[in-house]
Parts: sequence; structure tokens; C-alpha cells
Amino acid sequence: MIRVGIIGSTGYAGQELVRLLLTHPQAKIVWYGSQSYVDQKYADVYRNMFKLVDDVCRGEDLTALANECDVIFTATPQGLCAKLVSEEVLTKCKVIDLSADFRLKDVEVYEAWYKIKHASPDYIKEAVYGLCEINREEIKKARLIANPGCYTTCSILTAYPLVKEGIIDPDTLIIDAKSGTSGAGRGAKVANLFCEVNESIKPYGVANHRHTPEIEEQLGYAAGKPLTLSFTPHLVPMNRGILATEYASLTDPKITKEEIRAAYEKYYKDEYFIRLLADGVVPETRWVEGSNFVDIGFVKDERTGRVILMGAIDNLVKGAAGQAVQNMNLVFGLPENTGLAFAPVFP
Amino acid sequence: MIRVGIIGSTGYAGQELVRLLLTHPQAKIVWYGSQSYVDQKYADVYRNMFKLVDDVCRGEDLTALANECDVIFTATPQGLCAKLVSEEVLTKCKVIDLSADFRLKDVEVYEAWYKIKHASPDYIKEAVYGLCEINREEIKKARLIANPGCYTTCSILTAYPLVKEGIIDPDTLIIDAKSGTSGAGRGAKVANLFCEVNESIKPYGVANHRHTPEIEEQLGYAAGKPLTLSFTPHLVPMNRGILATEYASLTDPKITKEEIRAAYEKYYKDEYFIRLLADGVVPETRWVEGSNFVDIGFVKDERTGRVILMGAIDNLVKGAAGQAVQNMNLVFGLPENTGLAFAPVFP
Amino acid sequence: MIRVGIIGSTGYAGQELVRLLLTHPQAKIVWYGSQSYVDQKYADVYRNMFKLVDDVCRGEDLTALANECDVIFTATPQGLCAKLVSEEVLTKCKVIDLSADFRLKDVEVYEAWYKIKHASPDYIKEAVYGLCEINREEIKKARLIANPGCYTTCSILTAYPLVKEGIIDPDTLIIDAKSGTSGAGRGAKVANLFCEVNESIKPYGVANHRHTPEIEEQLGYAAGKPLTLSFTPHLVPMNRGILATEYASLTDPKITKEEIRAAYEKYYKDEYFIRLLADGVVPETRWVEGSNFVDIGFVKDERTGRVILMGAIDNLVKGAAGQAVQNMNLVFGLPENTGLAFAPVFP
Amino acid sequence: MIRVGIIGSTGYAGQELVRLLLTHPQAKIVWYGSQSYVDQKYADVYRNMFKLVDDVCRGEDLTALANECDVIFTATPQGLCAKLVSEEVLTKCKVIDLSADFRLKDVEVYEAWYKIKHASPDYIKEAVYGLCEINREEIKKARLIANPGCYTTCSILTAYPLVKEGIIDPDTLIIDAKSGTSGAGRGAKVANLFCEVNESIKPYGVANHRHTPEIEEQLGYAAGKPLTLSFTPHLVPMNRGILATEYASLTDPKITKEEIRAAYEKYYKDEYFIRLLADGVVPETRWVEGSNFVDIGFVKDERTGRVILMGAIDNLVKGAAGQAVQNMNLVFGLPENTGLAFAPVFP
Repeated sequence: MIRVGIIGSTGYAGQELVRLLLTHPQAKIVWYGSQSYVDQKYADVYRNMFKLVDDVCRGEDLTALANECDVIFTATPQGLCAKLVSEEVLTKCKVIDLSADFRLKDVEVYEAWYKIKHASPDYIKEAVYGLCEINREEIKKARLIANPGCYTTCSILTAYPLVKEGIIDPDTLIIDAKSGTSGAGRGAKVANLFCEVNESIKPYGVANHRHTPEIEEQLGYAAGKPLTLSFTPHLVPMNRGILATEYASLTDPKITKEEIRAAYEKYYKDEYFIRLLADGVVPETRWVEGSNFVDIGFVKDERTGRVILMGAIDNLVKGAAGQAVQNMNLVFGLPENTGLAFAPVFP
Repeated sequence: MIRVGIIGSTGYAGQELVRLLLTHPQAKIVWYGSQSYVDQKYADVYRNMFKLVDDVCRGEDLTALANECDVIFTATPQGLCAKLVSEEVLTKCKVIDLSADFRLKDVEVYEAWYKIKHASPDYIKEAVYGLCEINREEIKKARLIANPGCYTTCSILTAYPLVKEGIIDPDTLIIDAKSGTSGAGRGAKVANLFCEVNESIKPYGVANHRHTPEIEEQLGYAAGKPLTLSFTPHLVPMNRGILATEYASLTDPKITKEEIRAAYEKYYKDEYFIRLLADGVVPETRWVEGSNFVDIGFVKDERTGRVILMGAIDNLVKGAAGQAVQNMNLVFGLPENTGLAFAPVFP
Repeated sequence: MIRVGIIGSTGYAGQELVRLLLTHPQAKIVWYGSQSYVDQKYADVYRNMFKLVDDVCRGEDLTALANECDVIFTATPQGLCAKLVSEEVLTKCKVIDLSADFRLKDVEVYEAWYKIKHASPDYIKEAVYGLCEINREEIKKARLIANPGCYTTCSILTAYPLVKEGIIDPDTLIIDAKSGTSGAGRGAKVANLFCEVNESIKPYGVANHRHTPEIEEQLGYAAGKPLTLSFTPHLVPMNRGILATEYASLTDPKITKEEIRAAYEKYYKDEYFIRLLADGVVPETRWVEGSNFVDIGFVKDERTGRVILMGAIDNLVKGAAGQAVQNMNLVFGLPENTGLAFAPVFP
Repeated sequence: MIRVGIIGSTGYAGQELVRLLLTHPQAKIVWYGSQSYVDQKYADVYRNMFKLVDDVCRGEDLTALANECDVIFTATPQGLCAKLVSEEVLTKCKVIDLSADFRLKDVEVYEAWYKIKHASPDYIKEAVYGLCEINREEIKKARLIANPGCYTTCSILTAYPLVKEGIIDPDTLIIDAKSGTSGAGRGAKVANLFCEVNESIKPYGVANHRHTPEIEEQLGYAAGKPLTLSFTPHLVPMNRGILATEYASLTDPKITKEEIRAAYEKYYKDEYFIRLLADGVVPETRWVEGSNFVDIGFVKDERTGRVILMGAIDNLVKGAAGQAVQNMNLVFGLPENTGLAFAPVFP
């Protein structure tokens, strides 16, 4: 049994980790860390866990935790994991960080976008970007994994094969993304009250959202050169789900939709969690809700010479906790879909 | 492996059966029956099943099906199961009927409330009412199981111990129930369009909803005498969930809340799926969503001498498909929570 | 032009007052009071008011305000209006209080349920309970009006004629009420976040909600004697709307539905804002949204001898700001529906 | 009083026309036309109108109607208005068509995108495209007005000044639009059921939505040359609202945000219904709900040389019925905001 500790288990992503790990056949949660609810019963914070979790929330002492765990998930605000990680911790156990601390390889870019001084820049180089379908082999050997952001997971996987194969011009890439409200976290803010979110849609972080450099860096690796793109997130009145609608010009307008499909299949045809939709079918977030699947579809627009790429995930699963478990499975040599092979919940 | 056939697999309850059975370790679906989608791929009807279900929808020939299956679930409109069931079918396999055809023991009551001539009244006596926590032993031996209605499951389980123990006066029982919209089914009706349901709540079937006699019959058995009660369902703008708020006078105002709790514990303390909430905690549908749990709470109102009972379930799980699987587990001698032991999905 | 000041203009009820008064032909808002947003532009707090309101939020000095206004609305937390009201204020202008401070005639009941020491009990006697359809004549002469609560407005108006005429036994009255989330206010609380409210329904304040004594007092006047009833509110995932489903035994089971209807018509047939629905029609909150209407329907249940009464209002309009404007109209001798004669918004 | 007839009064746009016209001081509805509900009371189809509209639905005989009306609104499926319009009708009264029949000047484009043979191509030339802020003077003199589509109104107004002034390269224009579900109409379709729409977002009509040529034609006039653009609509789980997020490259990256703002102000500074948001503020559909306002914001992205334009409207008001009333006001010489000068409804 893999002994698991969770720092930040009382946020939405942390709670989703708990939900997924409770039915994972090879893992057992031994530490429910929380900053706000120390000494309270976990099931009093999330009553869906009543009679399923008897544990009491504990603090967030990573070093103490490292002695009890084989793997630690940190689902915490930016900056915390960078502060807590150490050689001692990494020697004793694996760390899978759901925050952004180790996602960007360029510490200056990190500090510019996050406006935080990075507390352990030395580990940036070692950390592996945990986008399983792209970096699988590196993940298997990693001690420290930077679990990707929710928008980035969806945005990158939707475009990756076409960028990698030179089918689209990466400098024309525009990503218009839409997210359910759980992505905003469980903090008590007026802007996230039911009556403020319900019956409305809004853009936010226009031209300055922090997931932008993360997408650019990863797709830059695929393109083999740096790239700059437009990324606009929107808040949608639903609990879960991310849809990314991406626009790019074909590098050659004669590229056929069969060739586009072939590029996707080259990279994804054996991927359990990526579902390339049939011609004419577009992704909808409802069809992936509660699951680790990524649904991807595309339309070639003959009129404009553009291709419209569309991807959908559950932001809390493939966009956070599910991918973290997938990373754990890789690190511990388990079949990648262990504990994650279930159907999306509908309706 | 239990071979499973589903008649009506393309309704919401049928689809939930598919979702649950896909991860059931002892069951395998061999027949996806559908009236409307014969010869279409199941995953084209419910795209959440893409890459998980390759089957094509087949017709609803119960006799043919009986040769291929160990158990048949009928998630069909009222009257269909009664028409299709036969000695030949029941000799070959078990039938778990999610419609109302075999729930009421009095065929006249059935015909009066459903306005349908019952096609096989002879089987009514044999059929076992599949409320697992109450009729467990009979279910284990049954060939034909009448899976309870969603409102009824919630309403009965919430009140049962207090009626059985004579703590409340059954003739004062008033049940005000609220349901998510999946309970209305997947038929294309103006009344169930998004814009008609969203941002509104309404009562319906006031004083004449068909689940009324079902609740009365079952609670009448508990009371040891016939009873008449008020039942009012309401439509709530959410996908899933039923909340029953029930009001009844105590038979003796001196009965304490500890005595009320003791009555619940007498019947439910070892039940896996029933979660009796702590004092002061009330059920909310979000805490059971996606699961087979029943959350129950109560408040004794000293001012009025009444007790307010509250129960919450997921209408598609404990109120339909989950309870049907629980019944299947009982019939086939499996641990009752096989394939159902997972946490509710939140948010 | 009536000069209007609003204390608490940045809460949801305060904002609704602003919306309604902007198109009121005889009123002009001269003071936008706010505790949290002083010196900020009102339209920065509520962007729907951009280009419609240029004012900046001011403080909540009732005495200063009294010099500039003909009427002051206080849409503030419990206790504040009682602290601020004075002879000087009431001499200079009318006060319409949307809080609970002057709703209950018995100061001990107020202090017991609200757990606040009442700061100006001397004015309780003078204050008129502003339920326009019941207390119209007293309201016209009042200086200080206690605008009723949202649940209470709906609950009382739905039952009033039947209690008054002795058609129902008031001691059997059970009110199961459901409210949209704007009733919970704009405070930043985890419990009111989108993801916490959406896709769920829950009861709260069971057997101890503060609107209970208010309903009991007013219906007690109608009954001619004190009464005790059960009242259970529920939170519904929608912005606006209250539905009250009320259960009571007929004092005589032979009372016909025509007699019940006649009782309603006796009191309401000339009321502009009360719409008694046709036989067989039940109220739904969507049909009153954004308006000051009260939709009322009922069903006599022959089986149980009970009558089920149902009423629907918009909690922010008839349940708060709309009724406050209606009260203002009465006080200033205007036609009662001035500024309020528009259709509900659907969908 | 302007006598108004409405063909298609029982659709969502038709009902919104009724709502708006009921409080219009210069208009009176004399004909509630409907295909599906002839001889039924209008208030039985839309119960919000109970006690406000006593009329019974009548048929859709445009010629008969022309004798009783000064203006006819046709809120009907594509093709119907083109079939019914005639010289006799236009001689007697104005026609404001909410369908697409007269929006496109090129009949071949119409027939290609709508797959309908146009029944009265001769009137296409005469028809004026009723985008009030752009074509105000032509509208005043028109007999036949083509009321713009909901997506098109929002998309065009958001981009118009920048295209007209040559600030953006029109061939780089990409419009990612999001709509509430009322835009899908009141037809009973599975895809529009509550449980299918709720908790999901999806794109549709990708690269082939019928509003595309309409946007292209109108922005082409502004650009002074034909243009081709990408337009992708999405369905959002909310009743009302359209948000258009538009991306375009600046024709010169040195263009400043002040120059962009100046372009907007040049065209819109005196427009009552267009609200150009302050720097840093983005539109949200909730702030225009129920109103005829268009909220517009923009962000210059220094990194990509693009400008992101954002516009929000209520699809049923400025996107349909409200703009139709605005057109009526222009035609009859009334102040343009007559009957439309009210605040958006929030929450």
C-alpha cells in the first residue's frame, strides 16, 4: 500500500484527491493536512465523507509527514510547496505538487507572473512537469513532480500534436477557455457567491492570466522554439469542467482534416485517457464530468484556413487531482489508470 | 460474472445502471436494450461512455434476453414490465423492475393511480418490494423484485423506524419532497427545457402523485395498520438529488430526542448505506450526490410537539440504479455494497 | 418628487430598491448609504447601474439623512435601525425598515429569537407592520413601517384568508418554504459560494428560524388567538424566489373547494398584486420573478381532509424592496402600484 | 398609441416583446399571433402574464393583421416572414422581422446558409438592417426592417468602431461567443432539456453557424471590403445573455489603448444603450440582464500585438425584442429609449 499524505486536503482539489484515493486499490491516505481546519474532523468539513473518513485534520509539517508517507500531494497556495520542500523530504518520499511552484523552468518568468520570490529555485531543474501523456518516462523517474494547471492541461493536450507536427502556426494560436467555478477555490469571496456567478458568464485575467506562460513554455518545447499566444479564461456557472476552444492557422491550407486526425492519432491513439472524437463531434464538459478523460475534437474551416481545436476535461480530475493520481501511478509503477478507470457521471 | 441485460438502458436511470455496472467487479452488461435507439451505438446516445462501451443498442425482447442473462433490469415506462414478464423468463433469470408495475400489492390501487390495466397481476404477490434495508431477507430469495420509486425510497427510509416503533402518529405524517430534474426523465417536453426549470421551483402532482400509495402501503406495514398521508413533490433546478422533509406529531410529547435517535439506531446502526447524522446536522443533497447513501437527520420541535425528519438521496442511485444494483448483490449473494462503495461526488 | 435615502443600499435588497426606484415616476434617490463601500461609486459596486447611477456611496447617519429626505429605507442588519431611529428623525421623514427590528410587537419575543437587546422598544408600539394587503389603512398614517420578512410575506398572505375565516385549524399549520439564494445576502461566506449552493437543496434553521414568531404573531391576529406552527425554510439553487407550501387541516372536512376559493376572493379579489390562480394551477416562482406579484393556489385533499396552500413571490421584490416601495406609495398617497406595474421577467 | 401585432408571440423572443410592450407608454398590443396555441389564452402559455394579458392567441394572417396594426413584429422561424410580406401589408403598416429573412443582402448567401428558397427576394433590397446604432437614419424611413440576430448584434457592435477606423485587421478577426439557452428557443428537444444543458458548456455550429455571413456582411461594410472571419458559438447553462470575446491583430502594434478607446468614443459616446466600460473592466452578462444595454470592454495585449474585445448583451432584449422595440421607436419618431430606459435586473 502506498502511504499518502495530502497537504491542503480541505480545498476543492484536495477533497477530490481524497475522493479518488478512497477507492484506489493501492493507496491509503494517512495524513489529512489542512491550514484552516486543524483538529477538526475531515468529515465535518466535507460531509460527503461522513462514515468514509474518520480522520481529523492535521497540520502541514512536510518533514514530519515525510516520515509517515511514501508520497505527498501538496494542493496548496502558490509558494508554499517551494518553501517546504527539502532534500530530506525528497529523500524519504515523492512529492507531487499541485501548485504552480515547479511548473515553470524559468524562475524569472515565475516571479514575474506570480509576484512571489521563489523559495527553492534549485529544485526547479529537477522537477518534472507532470503532464503524463507527454512526459511519461521522465515522470516515472521523478522525485518531485509539478502537476500541471487545469487550464494548461486542457489547452496543451488539445494543441500538442498539431504544434509538434508543424501543422499549425504556433504564433497564430488563440485559446479561449471556459471553466466551472470550482477552479476558483473554496475561499469566501463575494465574487464567487452563488448569486454573483449564477446566470452570468465573464472573462477574467484577460492577457495576464498566470497559466499563459505555462502553456507557452510547454507548447514551445513541442514547437522547438519559443512562442507567444493569447489565452483568455472565462467563468461559467457550473461546478466542474473546462472547455478550451483554440484557433490557429494551418501552416499550409492544403492540409486535410485526415492529416490533422493522423497527427492526433500518432500521439494519442494508445492513450487511455484521451478520447479523440469522431468527425463532426465536438467536446462538451458534461461528457467528462467526474472522470480523468480528455475529449478532443477539431474542425477545419475551409473558408478561413484555420483549424478550430476543442478540448474538454474535468478541472478537478484531469485538471488537478486525477492527473496527480495518474502521476502517482506512474511513479510507483502501477498501471496508469489504476483507481481512475470509471465512467464520467451524467447528468 | 453475472450477465446483465438492461431494458430501457437509454433513459437516465438506465444510463446510471450502465455507469455503476461498468465498475462492478462481478457483473458484465451483455444487452443494452432501448426502444428509441435500436441499432445505434450506445456511446452515441451517451457520449460519456465513449471508449468505455462499444455495444450497439438492441431491442427489448425479454424472452430472447432471458437466454443470455442472469438478471434483467427493466428501466421502462409503467406497464411494460408487467406485459413482458413470464414464467419462462423468471425460470431463466432474475428480474429487477425499476418501474412501478410490481410495487403495489393491491392491483386495484395500482390501476386507480396509474390508470393502466395490469397485464400480469398474478406476479404481484410473488414480487418482493426491493427496499433493501427493510426487506433484505425476502429479496435474497426473490425471482422478481420491484425496485422502489425514488421519492418513496427516501420518504420511507426517513420515517420507517419512528413509525415502526410507534414514536410518531402516522396519520399526522406530511411529506414535503424536493427532487432534481433527472427524475422527470429524458423525454422531450417543453416543461423540462432548461429555461423552464432553471431559476424556479414548483410543486406538482399535489395530492395525487403516484408515489403516495406506495409510501402509504409500505409505512402501513410498519405501522401495522393502513394509513393516509400527505405527499407533495417539488421540482428543483438541479440535476440530481431528493430531499424529503417530513412532519409528524409525536405520539407522546415527552419522547426525547435521545429516544428518537435510539429508534433510528435500532434499525439502521449496521446499515452501510444509511448515515444517521449527528445532532444538529441536517441532510443536504450535495453530500450524497453520485452515491448510494441515504443521509437522515431530525429535529424535535419542543414548541409544537412535532418531529421534523429529513432524508436525502441521489434519486438516480439509491432512488433507482444504485438500489437496483444493491438488490442484485443481495440476490446473487454478494456483499451488499459491491460496486457501490465509493464516496459521493462534490462539488 | 419624494426624496429617498437608502441605508444599506449595497446589499441585495438595497440594490433592488435602487432598481425599482430608478423608474418610479414620483421618487428620486438622494442618498446611497453603505457601511462597506463609503466613498466608492455605487455603479462600481453594482455594475448594472453603470451610466444609470452616478452617485458615490455615503455613510449611514440617519439624522443627517433625515434633513435631505422625505423617506428613508433601512435595509440593514438586525439592530441597526432600532439604534438609529429617533423622534427627530421621525418628525422629519418617514422610515421604512426592511430589517426585523420593529416587526414583532413583543420585545421579549424579539430579544429571545434575535438574541439582541432592542435599542428603542418605545417605538415598537408605534411601528406599523407593513403587509400592505392586510394593514393598508394603518400604513397610510404611519411614520415608522416595519417591512415584513420575505418568508413571512409569502407565508402569511398564502394562509391569511383561511385563518381569518376559520376554514383551517391554525394549530395544524405547517409551512415548508423554499428560497432562492439572494435571501442569504451578499456577505462572503463559504456556505453561500456557488459550488456549495449549486446542485443541492438543504433545510436550515429547522424549528428555530427567526421568521417563525413573525408569522405566528400576524396569523394569530387573524385567528383571534395565539397560535404555534411549524416553519422550515430551505435553500434552493436559484437567485430569486420563495415558494411556501403550507399544510393545514380543514376545521370541517365538508368545506368545499368553492368555499375555500370564496374565502380568498373575499380578501383578495381587488388586490392588484395578489393573483389567485385558477383551479388546478399551482404557483411557480418563475412566473413572479422580478415583480411584486404574489401567486396563490390551493388543493383540497379529500383523502386526508387537509388543504395544501401554495404561494410564490420574488423574495427581493414583494419579499423586500417591492413591498417597501408599495408601502412608500401608500404613505405618500400614490396609487399603490406606482412604479411597480410591470410584468415578471421570464425566462 | 401605436397598434402592435406580433406574429410568433409565444416563442421566447415573442414573449419578451410582450413584456417590454406592456410598459411601453406609446404602444398597445392588439394581436397575439401564434402557430401552436391558437385560441388559447396567452396567459395560459406564459403564466407570468396572468392578470396582465387577457387576450387569446390568434393565427398568423399577416394581411388581416395589417388592417388592425401600425406595426407588425414577426418573431417566427426562418422563411415565414418572406412568405407573408407583400406590398399590401407594407403599404398599411411597418414590418419588423426578427427572423433572418431580410438580413442578408445577397440572396444566394442566404439560400446557401439557410438552405431555404427565399420567397420574396424583391424586398431584400428595400429592407433596412435594423442595427440601430449603425443604421439609425435609414431605419427611420424604412417600411421593412430586418432585426439583427442576437450573436450578430453583440459581435458587430463590439468590433464596429475598430474595423471602421482601420485599427484592427479584419481578416484576423476571431469571435468566440457564448450564449444563454433561451437563444435555442422553446421547442421541445432533448438537447435543450435541463439535465442536458445544466452543468456543461459546449461549442456548436463550429465554422458553419448561420450568423457568420451576417456578421461578415455588416463588418464588411464597415471595412469597405469583404472579409472572412471565424465565429464559434457556445451554449452556456444560464437563461439569458451573450458574451462575445473577439480577437484581432492591430494594424499597427504602436496603436495605443487610448487610441482604441477614442475610436469607440467617436461612434458610441452619445449612444444611450452602449456602455463603454472603464479601463480594466470587462463585461459580464449579469450586468445587462433584462435590459437593452450593450457593455463593451477591451484589453490591448502588448505581448501578442492583439486586442481582445469583449461585448455583453441580453440575447432576448438587445439581441431580439429590445432592439425590435428600439427600431419601432425610431420608425415612429419616438425617443429611442422609450419603454426601454430601465436598469438591468440583478441578481
